[in-house]
Amino acid sequence: MDLQYGLELVGTFVFAISGALAIRELEHDMFGAGFTGFITAIGGGTLRDILLDSYPLVWIGDVVFLYAILAGILAAFTFTNFLSRLRKTFFLFDTLGIAFFTVLGVEKALSLGMRPEIAAIMGMFTAVMGGVIRDTLTNQIPILFRKEVYASACLAGAIVYLILDHLEIARDLNLLISIVVIIVIRLLSMKYKLSLPQLK
Amino acid sequence: MDLQYGLELVGTFVFAISGALAIRELEHDMFGAGFTGFITAIGGGTLRDILLDSYPLVWIGDVVFLYAILAGILAAFTFTNFLSRLRKTFFLFDTLGIAFFTVLGVEKALSLGMRPEIAAIMGMFTAVMGGVIRDTLTNQIPILFRKEVYASACLAGAIVYLILDHLEIARDLNLLISIVVIIVIRLLSMKYKLSLPQLK
Amino acid sequence: MDLQYGLELVGTFVFAISGALAIRELEHDMFGAGFTGFITAIGGGTLRDILLDSYPLVWIGDVVFLYAILAGILAAFTFTNFLSRLRKTFFLFDTLGIAFFTVLGVEKALSLGMRPEIAAIMGMFTAVMGGVIRDTLTNQIPILFRKEVYASACLAGAIVYLILDHLEIARDLNLLISIVVIIVIRLLSMKYKLSLPQLK
Repeated sequence: MDLQYGLELVGTFVFAISGALAIRELEHDMFGAGFTGFITAIGGGTLRDILLDSYPLVWIGDVVFLYAILAGILAAFTFTNFLSRLRKTFFLFDTLGIAFFTVLGVEKALSLGMRPEIAAIMGMFTAVMGGVIRDTLTNQIPILFRKEVYASACLAGAIVYLILDHLEIARDLNLLISIVVIIVIRLLSMKYKLSLPQLK
Repeated sequence: MDLQYGLELVGTFVFAISGALAIRELEHDMFGAGFTGFITAIGGGTLRDILLDSYPLVWIGDVVFLYAILAGILAAFTFTNFLSRLRKTFFLFDTLGIAFFTVLGVEKALSLGMRPEIAAIMGMFTAVMGGVIRDTLTNQIPILFRKEVYASACLAGAIVYLILDHLEIARDLNLLISIVVIIVIRLLSMKYKLSLPQLK
Repeated sequence: MDLQYGLELVGTFVFAISGALAIRELEHDMFGAGFTGFITAIGGGTLRDILLDSYPLVWIGDVVFLYAILAGILAAFTFTNFLSRLRKTFFLFDTLGIAFFTVLGVEKALSLGMRPEIAAIMGMFTAVMGGVIRDTLTNQIPILFRKEVYASACLAGAIVYLILDHLEIARDLNLLISIVVIIVIRLLSMKYKLSLPQLK
């Protein structure tokens, strides 16, 4: 439980950094950057909890999450150049972030008594909807709709978690496998420029 | 009740198809198409139920709706060309869909004890907000803001339903009249290229 | 309490006018204009209440707000040219509106037992998110992300209110000071074209 809480905080921190840096090229001011950092960090989990009627929202019930976000935004402001040069590192961080948030979202939905189909959707939403809301507010095409394998990797990982959970595999092992599945799908699809087919 | 449930499922199925096909020209992949199909199908009813604090959401409480959406997305994937050529058929389906969802939304709000003014807004939201959210996420101007008579036809039909309901007309007859009103307004406005005046 | 209620109604009325006029250049029809007027007037408070799980929503529980919005939309339709020429007057109205809604949002969050950090965010959201949702739906960059000092003035005013509240200053005086702080920051930043620094 403590490990999960710690990882959730780290994920929130990382998402706040990536959100704040995401609009660097858009010539927004620091307030705009902080705002997108905040939205990116809380968006997915907030949407999930509103859909599931699970209150209070995580960041409203536990103020530590707000401070993790604030720390992420300040880090983005202070080390803008340094962090921007770390593109590869960031890609890894973001991939880790979506992998972990997917599994967190699945587990939260299951703990609220949801069916596995709903839990899979909630896992994916937790991971990607913060970025989708950020991109929509800043008038960009959400990453979800670009060619990359992104949200589909999360959905695949969520389904793997649910299958292994159904097979009653130990939770820790399941967490590890599902997270690795998401990371591997994302890394391989980037390396070999794989994408899903288009409708024609 | 069974008829209503069946029609709601058919409406959900049709909206999922039209949502999945809507982004065909945007070069999104199959995952993106499925995602927009899903959002289009659930968006309006989900927004309505969140605003009215009515939980569980329809598609979360009854998994059959999820499978209707999945079937719609798979139909869009399998018969893409065939369905795309059916423009006129689709226009009719969409018109039927918004007409039916408008009345469903009004009835749901009334059944939750809402005033008629709120019920009219909820009817319109149920019909059009799924498409509005889809268009916003994909960076397009929502159909609501284009020149066509679209959401205003839904609002007119909702008001007709509420007036007839106030006059204590039999529900089945009222359903039929209100749905026909919406369809006729939409068809006539398309045929004669009618539109509401602009502000100047 | 009566003064607060009256001011909230006036604020809602003014926001509906400014929302309806905001899309004048976009060649939308009257329905689209009315829709954006509605969204602008209810958006911020609705988002706040959904995040805080505070139901019924203000405009659903008290139909008077709906009529204030309708009056604002009709005023925008009737006096379009006259109101559009009043740019400066409108800027003042909007500034008054965001100042007052910020403080209302802070007070509502506090009255629901929220921590000051959450109350500050809710104050800012109440003031600016209606406009953000409107701009997002109409495919424009939200004012929040433009160079002007806008949402940050609200956040500053919310923090001033919370500090003075912590110091147990009389509520009426606190209301007045916080609202004046927001107005002065916004007016000065417009007059001297001040803006926050960008990330680089």
